[in-house]
This record gives sequence, C-alpha cells and structure tokens, in this order.
Amino acid sequence: MDLKEHDLDQLCINTIRMLSADAVQKANSGHPGTPMGLAPLGYLLWTQFLKHNPNNPHWPDRDRFVLSAGHASMLLYSLLYLTGYDLSLEEIKRFRQWESKTPGHPEQGHVPSGVETTTGPLGQGFANGVGMAIAERFLAAHFNRPGHSIVDHHTYVIASDGDMMEGIASEAASLAGHLQLEKLICFYDANQITIEGSTDLAFREDVKKRFEAYGWNVIGPLPDGNNLAAMSKAIQAAQAETERPSLIIVRTHIGYGSPNRQDSAQAHGEPLGEEEVRLTKEHLGWPTEPDFYVPEPALAHYRKTAGRGERLEAEWQRRFDAYAAADPDLAKEWQRMVKGERPEGWDSEIKKYQPKGATATRRAFGEVLNLTAPRLSNLIGGSADLAPSNDTTQKGLGDFLAGHYEGRTLHFGVREHAMGGALNGMALHGGVIPYGGTFLIFSDYMKASIRLAALMELPVIYIFTHDSIGLGEDGPTHQPIEQLAGLRAIPNLTVIRPADATETATAWRLAVARRKGPVALILTRQKIPLIDRSRSAPADQLEKGAYVLSETEGRAAEMILIATGSEVHLAVEAAQALEKEGAAVRVVSMPSWELFERQPVSYRTAVLPPEVTARISIEAASTFGWERYVGGSGAMIGLNRFGASAPGEVVMRELGFTVENVLAHARPLLNAPSGAGAGRRKGS
Amino acid sequence: MDLKEHDLDQLCINTIRMLSADAVQKANSGHPGTPMGLAPLGYLLWTQFLKHNPNNPHWPDRDRFVLSAGHASMLLYSLLYLTGYDLSLEEIKRFRQWESKTPGHPEQGHVPSGVETTTGPLGQGFANGVGMAIAERFLAAHFNRPGHSIVDHHTYVIASDGDMMEGIASEAASLAGHLQLEKLICFYDANQITIEGSTDLAFREDVKKRFEAYGWNVIGPLPDGNNLAAMSKAIQAAQAETERPSLIIVRTHIGYGSPNRQDSAQAHGEPLGEEEVRLTKEHLGWPTEPDFYVPEPALAHYRKTAGRGERLEAEWQRRFDAYAAADPDLAKEWQRMVKGERPEGWDSEIKKYQPKGATATRRAFGEVLNLTAPRLSNLIGGSADLAPSNDTTQKGLGDFLAGHYEGRTLHFGVREHAMGGALNGMALHGGVIPYGGTFLIFSDYMKASIRLAALMELPVIYIFTHDSIGLGEDGPTHQPIEQLAGLRAIPNLTVIRPADATETATAWRLAVARRKGPVALILTRQKIPLIDRSRSAPADQLEKGAYVLSETEGRAAEMILIATGSEVHLAVEAAQALEKEGAAVRVVSMPSWELFERQPVSYRTAVLPPEVTARISIEAASTFGWERYVGGSGAMIGLNRFGASAPGEVVMRELGFTVENVLAHARPLLNAPSGAGAGRRKGS
Repeated sequence: MDLKEHDLDQLCINTIRMLSADAVQKANSGHPGTPMGLAPLGYLLWTQFLKHNPNNPHWPDRDRFVLSAGHASMLLYSLLYLTGYDLSLEEIKRFRQWESKTPGHPEQGHVPSGVETTTGPLGQGFANGVGMAIAERFLAAHFNRPGHSIVDHHTYVIASDGDMMEGIASEAASLAGHLQLEKLICFYDANQITIEGSTDLAFREDVKKRFEAYGWNVIGPLPDGNNLAAMSKAIQAAQAETERPSLIIVRTHIGYGSPNRQDSAQAHGEPLGEEEVRLTKEHLGWPTEPDFYVPEPALAHYRKTAGRGERLEAEWQRRFDAYAAADPDLAKEWQRMVKGERPEGWDSEIKKYQPKGATATRRAFGEVLNLTAPRLSNLIGGSADLAPSNDTTQKGLGDFLAGHYEGRTLHFGVREHAMGGALNGMALHGGVIPYGGTFLIFSDYMKASIRLAALMELPVIYIFTHDSIGLGEDGPTHQPIEQLAGLRAIPNLTVIRPADATETATAWRLAVARRKGPVALILTRQKIPLIDRSRSAPADQLEKGAYVLSETEGRAAEMILIATGSEVHLAVEAAQALEKEGAAVRVVSMPSWELFERQPVSYRTAVLPPEVTARISIEAASTFGWERYVGGSGAMIGLNRFGASAPGEVVMRELGFTVENVLAHARPLLNAPSGAGAGRRKGS
Repeated sequence: MDLKEHDLDQLCINTIRMLSADAVQKANSGHPGTPMGLAPLGYLLWTQFLKHNPNNPHWPDRDRFVLSAGHASMLLYSLLYLTGYDLSLEEIKRFRQWESKTPGHPEQGHVPSGVETTTGPLGQGFANGVGMAIAERFLAAHFNRPGHSIVDHHTYVIASDGDMMEGIASEAASLAGHLQLEKLICFYDANQITIEGSTDLAFREDVKKRFEAYGWNVIGPLPDGNNLAAMSKAIQAAQAETERPSLIIVRTHIGYGSPNRQDSAQAHGEPLGEEEVRLTKEHLGWPTEPDFYVPEPALAHYRKTAGRGERLEAEWQRRFDAYAAADPDLAKEWQRMVKGERPEGWDSEIKKYQPKGATATRRAFGEVLNLTAPRLSNLIGGSADLAPSNDTTQKGLGDFLAGHYEGRTLHFGVREHAMGGALNGMALHGGVIPYGGTFLIFSDYMKASIRLAALMELPVIYIFTHDSIGLGEDGPTHQPIEQLAGLRAIPNLTVIRPADATETATAWRLAVARRKGPVALILTRQKIPLIDRSRSAPADQLEKGAYVLSETEGRAAEMILIATGSEVHLAVEAAQALEKEGAAVRVVSMPSWELFERQPVSYRTAVLPPEVTARISIEAASTFGWERYVGGSGAMIGLNRFGASAPGEVVMRELGFTVENVLAHARPLLNAPSGAGAGRRKGS
C-alpha cells in the first residue's frame, strides 16, 4: 500500500474520516462533514475514556454516550464497527439503505446494540443525556453503600451548534446545572457552520458564558479539535469535577481534510462528490482505493477497546459480587430494576382502591400514585411546575434535588420539552420508571419528545391533566381541543382517558405494567361522578380500550353512545333518558382507541356491532378521527373550534355537552330509517 | 371615605392591586399575585413611558406591550380600563365569565382593542415581542427617510420566571440578541415564586449573565419593584440603548400587600380568599368596601394618559403628513401595508407560471416565491436553518441582519419554536407578510406557536417541506407520519398539500391572499410528475380544497381514488390501469381538507357522490381521520407506523405506495356488492 507513514493516532482518526466520507458517497446521501471534524474526539473518547465493553453493550454500569448531533451518525457507526460492536463493515457499506443496520440517523433498538438513543431532531439527545445522568444519580443514591459503589458512570454527549440553538437543550442545560449533575459531560462541537452557512448568520451568542450562567463547569473553547492532548486534559478535568456538569467546547472543522469542502455548509449535508473524496484521501495521505479501506494497524488498535472494556467490566463485577455478598437483598432489587421488572404485589393496593365518590380523575390519579409509590422504589417523576395541579407528587418520599438524589419527585421547572427529553433519557438508561406531568395543552410543547419515546417504544408515562374545556376559566389558551387527536395519531403511543376514579386506577396499573411504548393518561381538572359499577361493567374492562358500560336490559341496542373520560357520565345519563323514551341504548366507554384496536375483530364487533349504525360519539375535543367508530350514519358531539373562558360547567353547557344536546342528536338518528342517518356532524 | 392619605402614585398602584384581588375573588378563579407584584411597574410604564393612545389603539406607530406572563391578565385589564380603553369596570367585574371581555388570559381580538397578543402559554409572548421588534425594524428600514421617521416605536414585554424557563424564550432571546433589536425592552418579573414553590426548587441559574451571553443590555436586578424612580431610570437607560435589546430585571413580591399570601406559591394561582382580601385592603390602607373600588383621584390621573396619547399621536401625524407631502407614493405604500392589503397585480407572474416538468413541490414553491417577491416588498420570512432545503430565500433581496433591517430573508437559526412565536409577533405587529419554513417533522417543535396563530387567526404562512417518507434516507426521525393529521385537527389552520408544481403555484397565491388565519403549505422533497392539465381539471380548482382531477370518459364513476400531494400521480396511474381493466374511476385531488369543508354541500357531494362507496384514500401519512371521506366501505392506503431510512423511492415502494398496491386494494372493492365493502384499512 502507498499509505504514508502516520502515527497510529492519526491513522485511527483518518479511518473514521474516510469511512464516513466513503459511506456518504456510496449512499449518495448523508452528512460527511461532522464525523470528519469530530473524528479525533470520537477516537480519543471511545478508546481512552469511555467506560464501555463492546462485547457486552448492556453492562449496566457502562458510561452512556449520546450523539445528540445525530446527523453525524457515521461517526458513531465507525466507532461501533471499529471498536468491535456487532456492526460489520458490510453494514457500513449499506449506510442509509433499506433494512440496513446503519440508518440515516442513529436508531436505538434498530442497530442491535451500542446506540443508546435515537437522535437527529436537534436538542433531543442533549436532553436525553440529562435524563440519563438523572437516572444514574438516582440509582447511585439508592444503591451505593459505603465501600460499595456499583452505580458510578458518566454520560457523555456530543452536541452541535444546532443543538445549542434549540430551546429544549437550553431548558435541559438549565435543569442539569440546577441539579448539579456532575457526571454529565457534554462536548460542544463548535464547527461554526450550519446549513444556511456560517453560524454568524444566526448564532453569535457566548455559549461559554451562557452555560456558566446555568451553573456548568465550562472548559475551553479548545482551539484545536485535532489536539488530542488538550482534549484529554479537558476530559480529565471534567471527570474530576464534583459539583457541576461540564461543557467542553471544542473548535472543530467541518469536513476536515477535504481541500475544497472543509469549513463549508456544503460539507454538512451533501456527499463530498467522488472527485473531492479522492482529493481528500490524497490530502490526508490515504490510499484512494479501495473505498472503505481500514488499515490493519488502526483496526487492531481500536479492537483493543474490547479488552479494556472486558477488564473494566470484570473489575465492576468483582465490586458487585462483594456488594451482593454484603447485601443480597439490595443486590437482587438492583438486578430486578435493571431488568425493568416490577416487584411482586406492586399493584395490590390499587386493586383494593375504593374511590369515595365524585372526584377529578387527576385527584384519583394522585391517590393511586401514592398507593403504589411505596412499593415501587424506582418510580421517579414529577411535573413541569404544575405538581399541585397534576397531582404528581409522591408524598413523603422526598424531592430529587442537588445532593438529594434519593428523592422521588422531580421538579422539572416550566420546561416541558426538557422534561420530555429527560424522561426519554431516564427510560433509556434503565433501572427507573419515569413519569412526567403537565397540562394536556402543554403536551404541544413536548410533542417532539413524545414522538421519539413512541419511535423508541420507551416505557415513559405522561400525566396530562386539565384535559378539556372542562378546566374552565383559564380559557382557550389552556383548553385542549386537537391534542387528543394529535396524540392518538402518533404510532406506538397509548392514550388513555379514563371515565372516573375506577378507570383511572386501572389505567395507572396498566401504564406502570406496560414495558414497551409510552402511555399518556388524560385526566380531568374537574370533578366527575363515580360510575356505579354495581349497575355496569367493571372498570378493569378498560384494558380492552372500549367496553360496553351499560345497555337497555333485555333488548338489542338500537343506538350506541360512545364516550370517553368526563363525557361518559353524560352518555350514561342520556341513555337513561332515551330509555325512558322507549329506545334501547348501549353506552360504550372508550378510554383508549389504541387498546381497542389491539383487540381481536370478534371483540371489536361485539362492542360495536356493524348493524347498529345509529351511533353518537361524545368527547369534549375535536371530532377529528371519530368517523372511524361513528361511521357515516352517526353523529359526533365534539368541538371543532377553540374553547372559551368561563367556569367549566358553563363552558361545557354552552358548547353542547349536555344531556339535552345528546338527546337532540339522538332522536333524529333513532327515527331515521336504518342505515340512512344524516351523517351530521356537530361543529359547535 | 376612610381611605388613608396616600400619595397619588401609591393610590394608582393600589387600585390595580385591589381591582386584581377583587376580580379574582369574585370569579373565584385566577391569578391575583402577579398583578399585585407588578402593579407599580404597570402603572409607571403605561402612564409615563408607553407611547400609546387609548382613544386609538390601532395607531400604527404605537409602542407594543406584551404581557408574556398572561396569567397576570388582571394587570392588563386594570390598565386598559383605568387608562380609558374600551373596557368598562363592569367587564372587570365579569372577569373569567362567559362572553366577558376579560377572559382568563388576554385574548387578542377578543377584547376589542389594546390586547396586542394572546398569551398564557409561557414563553410565547416573549417570542411575539421579538417578532414585533423585527417587524418594527424592517418597516423602519423600508420607510423611514432622512429627516422623516415615521416608524419608531418600542416593544415592551413583561416576562415571568416561567417565561425565562421556557425554551422558546431562550431561542427568541438568542435571536433578538443576534439581531441587535435595540427597540425591544423586556422586564423580567423576578418574583422568585413558581407554582411548585420557590424558584430555588428548579431554577437557580444566573439570568442576568445568560442574557448578557445572548448579547443583551441587562439592567438590574433592581432590588425593589416598588421603587418607581429606580425603574424609571432603568427604562430610560433601556430606551437610550442603541445596539442591544434590553432586559430589566426587577425583584417583585408576588401578592404584594397580602399579609399572609405575599411571597407564597398560593398567591400565584388561587384567589386570596375573602378574609385575606379584607386583610390586604386593611394592610394597604384601602377601604374594605365596596369591592372594585376605584378612587376618583386615581382614575382621573390614569385618564390623563389619553390626553398624553392624543398629543403623541398628533405629533406623529404631523411628521407623517410632512413625510406624505415629501414622498406621497411611499406614504401610500405604507398605508396599504398597514391595512394589510396586497398591491395590484402582485400575483400576475404566478398566473403566468409555466412549470417545466417533474419537480419537487418545494422547488416549485421557491420559484413562485421568487416570482412574487419583487412585487411584495413587505414579504419577509425565512427558515429555521433549512433555507436551501425549504427554498425559502428571496433571491437578491438581502438578508435581514443586524444593521441590515431592509433585508427580506430572515435567518431564524435552528430555533423552530422561536420562529413560530416571532412569525406571530410579526403578523400581530402588522405591515408585513411573514412566512417561515422548516421540515414538516419539525412543525412538532413549534406546535404551540402554530396553535396560537390559529387561535388568533393570524395570517402567517408556514412552509413545511420534506413532507413524507418520500424524503428517504434521513429516516424515521425525519419522516412525518402523524403531522398532517395533527395539523388538520387544529381549528382555523388551513393545510394545503399540493399535488404538483401547478397546484403549488395556486396554493402560494391563496396563502398570500388570505388575510385571516394561518396557512401551512406541505411540500415534497422529492421530484414528482407534472399533472397533464390538458387532460385534467385546472390547478386553480385547488381553491375548493378538493376537485375531480380526472374520470373515465362517459361513464359514472364506480370508484373514487382520493389522494393528496405526491400520491396524486399514483392515483392517476392506478386509475388508468383500472380503466384498462374495465372500471370507471374518478380521481379526486384533495390538497386541503379545510378548503373543501368550506364548500357548499352541493359541491362536496358532487365531488364525492354518496352513492359511490368504493373509495380509496392514498396519502403517505397516517390514515388518521381519512374515514371522513372514505367512509365505512372504502380503503385507506397510508402509514400507521413510523418510516424507515432508505432512498425515498425504495421507502415509498416498500411501504406500499405503488400502483400495484392501489390496484390490490381497488379490485376487491370493485368486485364487492355495492355498499358492502370490506372496510379494510391498510396498516402497512
């Protein structure tokens, strides 16, 4: 080979650069520049500092690595392959191709292992890192004992200029500084280039000063992202920090080594081009052929990482064995939590839960939360500054605050988006059961994080209260309308809107038990009646998503009233009135479309028999999507407008959520010839 | 009266405090504490500094006032009433009641005048203020001439601790600092209390330092929010600043004057209670009866504001008259823009637009944008750092940057949410036509702002490109699935997904012409064929939301294929294949559900005749909601899963967007007995 003499470091670094350039070129799609600029840092971190074992990517005490700049995926794939994870060079050659293990952006759970989180939407990875660092501190506080440190790892994040601009990262950084998460180390890859050009076009703030304002330990800017010694020293300083998260600012050069693309916006998101790849190889003293060339000495050097990882894990295992010998019960609990299992009998108190009467479902939630909290010692969550309203506090179990990491209730501040990202990070870290609350309307602020939880199928629980115009006086800015439809449209997310305290208890049990995919509980602010279960189906039927709550005795239903949440009691009352008028009416409580859709067809048609076309949906929200269950001959009572400020019961009444209005919709349908309903829609 | 002697200032200030406490108490709902803490600042600003005329709230050169802390609405309502806006004391007594002019949070357009923007969701008002300041600088640069300054006003924002925590405010602050919006003056009401308690629980950053890092002029913290002299001095210093936006930090006391609630979280969101209201009145030397007491001297003093405003506007009018005399054409243009009118013939070039062939609709958009830009001199917008991808640049018309405020293209940076909030502020300010672009997937990041644009019915235009899995390699993190459904569910938002370049041109024309309510254009990344208009309906039919694009000649349709955007050509091809098999097929292009819903029933049933129940919807997105048009006997070809990373055409093919798959769905429907279709749903 005509490879010039390089020192080994440089050889290893350029291997990443050229794998990245080649992969993007072959795919004719992708982001070559950032991996090329970050190659020295990636090499240094993964071979010298990151505590990981490529042979066991699931080692619980490994350091977490988050590539928040997910577009630089080839950096991560290069490192995974080179250090010996289960990712072949063949897969790198299939970058961005159908069913390859190397998708355009890193996908957790898609690559078999080694990708800690799915990134790409900027800022999310940063917030995930904060969540991981929270989980680490929590578990360390719960499980470490004097002389026994079994949870003790760092979370490393690589963030880009774009990450730094996103609000979610600002929120998460403020939270991390507040919580003094000293095991969090973030690299800010300051390459000064964004898609539109120089960062001077849109971003001239002093990031160092900003992070100091958040209470971070800021190191740098290091002027040269190729200076391994300086970066080593910075990482050591960050590791030695004991009170603050660290930000290491590194000035890198996007497309480093490309004679005509380095430091250009083109290097961000376009292949270099065949000719420029060749020129880059020449410039870096790299053989121009073959593509995807990996020098043996480089690979051999990288692969030593596995040996280092094995040793590190073995050391940890010895520590853990000593810990297990000293406290076998605690060790078992730890193992159970790491596996994501729930303890025996964790829900026994819920099963005994006897609500006393009319109550807001948020209050019922607060009660069942606190019935289960003592038995779920890794349940950790809170609210984005709405705890008294969301009822998300685990009473008597402490606040999670700097220096009080054993506390169970988090105070996220008015930072919904960071909460969403941090919850994802906590779930990804494992060992904890995370939940977070805000008003349903503010789920809008964290939508991008909810989507990523759904994409990764993370067991995150959302507590969204104040779920309709029924919240009243706060008015249309706070009254959700389209949020239910929006959440229901997200694949893999289970939305549950319970109809009373008993359904709420079942919903919470189901949410905690569920270990795959996020669950959103949609809860009322206002008191709603307790369904009389002596006269109707039991609340555990909620598990099926929809069920027949009541029907006219001894007669086949002529009409079905389908309702969710606070509107179910309205359906029950309307059905009673219609029965008095001689009609046979079925009431279906439908707390969760997603759970219902997972039932067999036989069950679904039993609940909603196709021959009964006189159907009315009742939900104080947009009717968007309800045609699915109502069909072309039914009616929908909902809200295709924004709400209004007034006491909740007034708004409900004025906007049509009354028995009278249900009757007004029902009577024409009952009188219409079968199957020839008006298909009317309430657009009140 | 047993009112103790007060100086007039104190009397005026306490009037706000007690009106607020009384109104919240009477409503038994609301936020008394913040208005009580902010009363001195509100009084000072509105009577001494704010350039406004209560008798003409629409005076174009007025200062803008934004209460970002919207929960403190009683501060604003008190000031509106006291200074003589069209808001009576009776309305204040009806605070938070049905159809009152004093809803829970300030609603722009609801109160007749004086409420510049709808606030409540935190951080939004702050970003609105940044947008208003952008519009002011833009119009000043365009219209002011040496010796003639007709656009010269400040934007004042009052922000809370919660605003400071929200990511959107961080983004907007960074942008404002970058743009050096020196006419923006923000007060940070540091009352150190949030809903969960002391800000120490979640928020201990150094806000002063953070804003300095953004490039702001930070004044304070002023230790005493009751010290009028100190606040006056601070405002004067901020007004004198010529290079940076200003943040004035004021330490206030929530619930000031309430002996038992001051400085408590309870004072934030609960009525004080009758007894505590009484104690507060006593403590402040206020008569305990009657409620809603307004001392004559205070009212008289406040009402002088109108006289001051009249003088200020008259001065401005003289300047404007001189300006109009010197340059009548420019004056006329300015008047036209302030009215929101479009110039004669602005769209003449679009009408002539002849696309050359297959093109991405984002590229077609870029072309029509640049055809219209020269004739729309107040069209201003840009992208959240995706301009080359969104094609949002107005070529040759300059960048809007610090010191270059005449530029037409904004660089929002990777700050989607701030972009959304700023666009709202620009539209609210008036005089400009604002638009903003990002990938459709990142509409999630700005959802809360889009909703507020819809709630306020603002003429904001969104350019959302990369609208489906057709974007290809970037993979599921970037491929929208549920975004279309989510946007369609928002009341008042018009979503348009054009099928080719010709529909795109019509869509842009419609978006610019529309002056009420936001419009979202949903555009492809990938090239799509040009519809052969010689063989089908003209593209201006897009205005009706859906139209018959083609059908089997001379025969009544047996089947309707309904498609949007990039899937329309698939429907056309499938229809041709089905015709060859002997079927009579209609193709409906349905770019906009909302526009279609606004058509008369006669038109809608003409396009989608009820008797044709064999219908298939084709859209590369969630099928959520499509039952509305497909009915119970049709089929939906869509995506109820996340996408995948691979070249766009591969992903499209693998996930079912092929002629073959449409045929596979169509044939059983054509063969089924009429009205007894399978009701199948494609969950590919």
